[in-house]
Amino acid sequence: MRRALALAARGLGATSPNPVVGCVVLDARGEVAGEGFHQRAGGPHAEVHALRAAGERARGGTALVTLEPCDHTGRTGPCTRALLDAGIARVVYAVADPTPGASGGARRLREAGVEVVEGLLADEAAETNAAWLTAVRLGRPHVTWKYAATLDGRSAAADGTSRWITSAESRADVHRLRAESDAVLVGSGTARTDDPHLAVRGVEGAVQPLRVVVDTEARAVRPGARVLDGAAPTLVAVAEDAPAAAHLPEPLRLPRAGGGLDLTALLAALYARGVRAVLLEGGPTLAAAFLAAGAVDRVVGYLAPVLLGAGPTALADAGITTLGEAFRLRTTETVRLGNDLRITANLSPKEH
Amino acid sequence: MRRALALAARGLGATSPNPVVGCVVLDARGEVAGEGFHQRAGGPHAEVHALRAAGERARGGTALVTLEPCDHTGRTGPCTRALLDAGIARVVYAVADPTPGASGGARRLREAGVEVVEGLLADEAAETNAAWLTAVRLGRPHVTWKYAATLDGRSAAADGTSRWITSAESRADVHRLRAESDAVLVGSGTARTDDPHLAVRGVEGAVQPLRVVVDTEARAVRPGARVLDGAAPTLVAVAEDAPAAAHLPEPLRLPRAGGGLDLTALLAALYARGVRAVLLEGGPTLAAAFLAAGAVDRVVGYLAPVLLGAGPTALADAGITTLGEAFRLRTTETVRLGNDLRITANLSPKEH
Repeated sequence: MRRALALAARGLGATSPNPVVGCVVLDARGEVAGEGFHQRAGGPHAEVHALRAAGERARGGTALVTLEPCDHTGRTGPCTRALLDAGIARVVYAVADPTPGASGGARRLREAGVEVVEGLLADEAAETNAAWLTAVRLGRPHVTWKYAATLDGRSAAADGTSRWITSAESRADVHRLRAESDAVLVGSGTARTDDPHLAVRGVEGAVQPLRVVVDTEARAVRPGARVLDGAAPTLVAVAEDAPAAAHLPEPLRLPRAGGGLDLTALLAALYARGVRAVLLEGGPTLAAAFLAAGAVDRVVGYLAPVLLGAGPTALADAGITTLGEAFRLRTTETVRLGNDLRITANLSPKEH
Repeated sequence: MRRALALAARGLGATSPNPVVGCVVLDARGEVAGEGFHQRAGGPHAEVHALRAAGERARGGTALVTLEPCDHTGRTGPCTRALLDAGIARVVYAVADPTPGASGGARRLREAGVEVVEGLLADEAAETNAAWLTAVRLGRPHVTWKYAATLDGRSAAADGTSRWITSAESRADVHRLRAESDAVLVGSGTARTDDPHLAVRGVEGAVQPLRVVVDTEARAVRPGARVLDGAAPTLVAVAEDAPAAAHLPEPLRLPRAGGGLDLTALLAALYARGVRAVLLEGGPTLAAAFLAAGAVDRVVGYLAPVLLGAGPTALADAGITTLGEAFRLRTTETVRLGNDLRITANLSPKEH
C-alpha cells in the first residue's frame, strides 16, 4: 500500500477535479504483477493501468488501491467491472470514496464474491488525498497556506528586503508545492510589491497551476506584470464595481466583503472551474483574511534560522485577541531543507 | 566515545567553572572496565572516577576521554599522572584543552610513551562543552537564548495572555535547560508581567541555577516576588544610581548603557562568580539587547503549531533594518516535543 500511495502522489496537481489514486496488483502468489496511478482527469483510473500491466497474472490476485474502486461510468468505465473481468480475488483499499455517485464499489465487489478489506494506511491515504476529500466534504477547494519566515516570524526586514530569507532548497520545494496544486493565489500587496511570476519552474512533467491574484481594486496587477505572461493561465479577481482595465480582459468579478473580496465566493468560483487544491502564497493580510474566514486547511511554513527583530510578520491581524481564540494546529510533518525547517500542520476541523 | 559524551553531559550545570568531561576505560582486550564523569567542581575528574572503577583492569588498556586530560594540580592532582600510574597504554580524546594552565596533557602522555589520539567525535564534544569552551575563549559566560513562540513568531496574544502557548513537554524541557545552566536570566518586563520563579522543578539531582533579574531601575522585582524565595540563589542587577530597596539587600550595581544596563559588565560579573552557562529566558527587549551586543551564542526556540496574527513578537528591535544585516544561525538540532518543535541553532562566530 505504501507503494500505491507513492504512485498516487505522482498524480498530485494533475487529476483535479478527480482524486489521486495509486494501485498495485499482486499475482496469486503475492508478487507484484502491475502498478498504475491516475495521471489526469479523463484518463484511465489507477486500477485500469495496473491491471493492464499485470495482464493474465492478475487472475486470482490482489489489488491494493489507495481509494475505494469506483462503481460508476463516467468518461471511463467502472473500476469494479475491470477488477471483476480481470479475475481479482481480493481488493484492499485505504479510504472509502465519499462521493455519492462513485461510491458503492466495495459492496459491488463483495456481492460478486471478491474479498474486500478497507482501512489499510487510511490516515496516510487521506493525507495524500486531502485536497480532494476536503473538496468533496465542504464543496470548496482545499486551501494550503504557505509562508516563509525567520525564527522570530518575520517575512521581511524593516526596509522590506526579503530575498532571500530561506534557502535555495526551500525555494525549490515551493515549486513542488505549486506543481501539486491546481491554483496558486496571492493578494494585491504581494502582486504590487513582488510582481511574482507564480508559475512552476524546475519540476519535470508539472501541470502549470492557475495563477490567481486577488486584486480588489484592479490596480495591483499592472500592464506587463509577470503574472500576465503565457507561462500559465491567470485569473485576476476584482470587485464587482472595480474599474475596467484593458490589460485585464476577463477579470473574475466578485462581491466585496470586509475590505476585500468575498472569499467564499472566490473559492466557489474556483471550485466551479475544477480547482480542488489551492496554494495560498500570501501575503500576511490575505492569509489573515482566509484564516479568519475558516478557509485554511493546511499550513506549510518554511522557517529559516535567521533573526530579524523587526519587519513585517508572516501573518497579519486575523481577529484573534486572546490565546484561547488562537488557531491551534496539528503538526503532521517536520523536515530539514538545507539550513531551513519545513513544518506542515493541519487546522483542526473545529477551526473551520 | 559516544558513551563518554553521554556521561559528560550528565555533569551539565554542576561543574562550572570546570568543563563537563566523561571517560570510559577499556581493558587490554578492549572491553569496558570503568566509566566516570566529572560531577562537580572540586570533585575528582572523570578519568579518576573511571580508573577507580576499572582498578587493575586499566593496565595496558585505553582511556576514551571527551577532553584532553589535564596536566596541572588544582584541587585534585593531574589526570596525566593518574593515567600513567594506572598503566594506561592508549588515550583517545575528543577536544584539546585550550586553557593555558591545564593544557599540555597530551604532550606529557606522549613523552611517557602512551599512544595518544586526538579528535574522535570532536564536534559533538565541542557542542557538549560549548559553554565552557566559549567561556575560555571569550572570557565571558556562554549565553543561550531560549524563547517560546507561535509559528508566526508571537510570544503572547494581543491581550498579553501567553499561558500556555507551548505544550507540557516543552515546558518540562525548559527545566532541563535551566538545570544545565549556571544562571537563568530575565529582564524587568518579564519580572513585572510574569513574576517568574525561575528555579528548576522536576529534574532529579539538579543543581539550582543562580536566578538573575536585570532590573535597571530596581522597580520590577517587588517585595514578595517569587524569585526572592529560598528555592535557589538570586541576584538582582540594578543601575549604579538606582534607589536602594529594603527587599533587595545586596543588588549587583552596574553601569547603565543604551537604556538598560551594560551587558558586558553584567556578564563579566557573572563570570567572576564562576558562571559559565547563562540561560537567557527573555523577554523580547532583553533578548534584542543581548543579540545587538553580540552576546548570544545559541538559540533554543520552542515553536508551537499555533497562529495568532497579533500580539508581541518573541524578539524586539535589535537594530537590524535590512536582510543583509540579519543574524544568520546554523541549525544544530530539531526535535519534536509533543505537538511542538524545538529548534537549536548556533550564531556563527562572525555574528559575535
